[in-house]
Amino acid sequence: MSTSSDSLTSGAPPTAAILVIGNEILSGRTQDINIAYMAKGLAQHGIRVNEARVIPDIDVVIVNTLNELRANNTYVFTTGGIGPTHDDITADCIAQAFGVDIGIHPDAEARLMSYWSERNIQPNSDRLRMARIPEGATLIDNPVSAAPGFCLHNVYVMAGVPRIMQAMFDSILPGLQRGAVIDSVSVLCDLGEGTIASPLRALQLQYPEIDLGSYPGKMPRVDGEKFTVNLVARGTDKKQLQEVEQALIELVSNANGNIVSG
Amino acid sequence: MSTSSDSLTSGAPPTAAILVIGNEILSGRTQDINIAYMAKGLAQHGIRVNEARVIPDIDVVIVNTLNELRANNTYVFTTGGIGPTHDDITADCIAQAFGVDIGIHPDAEARLMSYWSERNIQPNSDRLRMARIPEGATLIDNPVSAAPGFCLHNVYVMAGVPRIMQAMFDSILPGLQRGAVIDSVSVLCDLGEGTIASPLRALQLQYPEIDLGSYPGKMPRVDGEKFTVNLVARGTDKKQLQEVEQALIELVSNANGNIVSG
Repeated sequence: MSTSSDSLTSGAPPTAAILVIGNEILSGRTQDINIAYMAKGLAQHGIRVNEARVIPDIDVVIVNTLNELRANNTYVFTTGGIGPTHDDITADCIAQAFGVDIGIHPDAEARLMSYWSERNIQPNSDRLRMARIPEGATLIDNPVSAAPGFCLHNVYVMAGVPRIMQAMFDSILPGLQRGAVIDSVSVLCDLGEGTIASPLRALQLQYPEIDLGSYPGKMPRVDGEKFTVNLVARGTDKKQLQEVEQALIELVSNANGNIVSG
Repeated sequence: MSTSSDSLTSGAPPTAAILVIGNEILSGRTQDINIAYMAKGLAQHGIRVNEARVIPDIDVVIVNTLNELRANNTYVFTTGGIGPTHDDITADCIAQAFGVDIGIHPDAEARLMSYWSERNIQPNSDRLRMARIPEGATLIDNPVSAAPGFCLHNVYVMAGVPRIMQAMFDSILPGLQRGAVIDSVSVLCDLGEGTIASPLRALQLQYPEIDLGSYPGKMPRVDGEKFTVNLVARGTDKKQLQEVEQALIELVSNANGNIVSG
């Protein structure tokens, strides 16, 4: 994997790691939907996601994981742990990871004070924890509930609540380094994976820059369920993708299969 | 973090890492639901999940990640990459990580041959890839489509298709080392997080062995949405959990809040 500085200076495609912070995901209480949301947006922006991790609210784990991921990726996107309660320790961990101080950020405080004032919410020391931002960080707007995320170097720190995370992510994405957009085409067919594995492998060898995947599924039918396979090609070269799509359609036809609609 | 052997010999609670293998998750094409399913089952069995990772179908990444996770956890559970197509490389990577050979497993082959024979499916070299199992591994039943998963030392290798993964996981869970079951109680209230953060922090200090979390949400109302906070306590001591539940109810009442039903 390339380091952040390599990626930024060598013209290599930008890369990302996603870091989901929260016991509620690792206990199975909450189904994460933030990884998929960010992954989609990053692909459309041409940023390759190297990995995603889910870790608990434990400071040493957050600090160490953050330091590993930020060294190995152009960008790191974190979600979770920036609220007012005792288990919200992400901001402090980010400060620790970067070796910088953390304190009340005047602009963050002002945004929160204004939001609270409009709603007759009393400020208190816990609520003000949400204005604590590591030194040198810039704020990420929170149009839902004011408490901002922040960016420090190549690390973007966002809320865990999906609606807030999505608004934050949408606002930062346009400002990120762009790679070639990763497009995809897909062909859904009624063949078994084992039937088309051989021509699919040959096609992958023919187009090494295209990422060819094969995903079994099923669809309802009058006489029960029917097994399907979705053949997905992803890549940055639109011409090659079109050629591969045509080849996939022919591949299904040659194997006496049918294209089905999903 | 304790190492696998520490956990197995010292009486420390068993731990787990979840490793999701597949480009389709990192591209955002597929929403993972396997992490949450396993996390729930492991908590009920008393196995703490230290982390979950999502990585791409790249052999060196799979091998290195697997070796890191299996050294640091009692168990590792992988999903994805054990089908018949070219992007299904998990079994080979597991063999490589353990430094063992891989080849056709007679029992796995027999299961597949029987399944195919009943369905008039022709065996071919690609389909037979699903019978390739690392040396020394034991099979995990696949009641859905026959192709087995396998267990090698502390690593459990399962399919990525949720229905198959769930059947495999359900069959192995009863045989795993048991820790104290991690139970949870929760109190949903109509207060802001900032209102109850202070007493919640005090309660956490009073019960250091209970994991207290606070999760903002919202619920529909006649006059629009209402913000809620779910206060969740998790731990292995049922008596303490009951005390904490009662304390949470009092905490909401003392802050002039209401318990609401989710």
